[in-house]
Amino acid sequence: MQLPTIHESWRLERNATGLARQFSFESYSQTRRFLDALADLSEREGYYPNLNFNRTQVNVGIEADAKTLGSKEYGFAAQTDTLISDRLVDEGE
Amino acid sequence: MQLPTIHESWRLERNATGLARQFSFESYSQTRRFLDALADLSEREGYYPNLNFNRTQVNVGIEADAKTLGSKEYGFAAQTDTLISDRLVDEGE
Repeated sequence: MQLPTIHESWRLERNATGLARQFSFESYSQTRRFLDALADLSEREGYYPNLNFNRTQVNVGIEADAKTLGSKEYGFAAQTDTLISDRLVDEGE
Repeated sequence: MQLPTIHESWRLERNATGLARQFSFESYSQTRRFLDALADLSEREGYYPNLNFNRTQVNVGIEADAKTLGSKEYGFAAQTDTLISDRLVDEGE
């Protein structure tokens, strides 16, 4: 099985049972637009990542339900990547 | 100077330079309603707390700009408290 391709700035965490990516924005309105889009994605997919944010930074954390990361987790990460358009500045790592 | 009164479930953090409170909800839609209200409050006040959340829990972190917590930080905490209505379940600690 091939896993969905995700952006290179995702980090593996906790012995490869989690994925995390930090997104940086220029303003709170950009941050909020991203969070709103991510909330819509969560509701569509029925998947709710751990989110940590302040005015201009958002950290998205995706944890494996099972012992290893699979297509569900990589798929959500890949869909999160697609939310970033050129209007949203991503400093990544 | 008297500081605004805040809910007893706020915790002092980092040698009393931060305030944190955890809110719990029954559903993601309640969580999201609270987050939206908090985002509106942030934009009105120009103050952006650290927020950490998943599907049904939100942790609000307020850090002091100066060395000690003052009316600005307590005021934001007190306003956050007012966002919780009877439609939003708050388990506190």
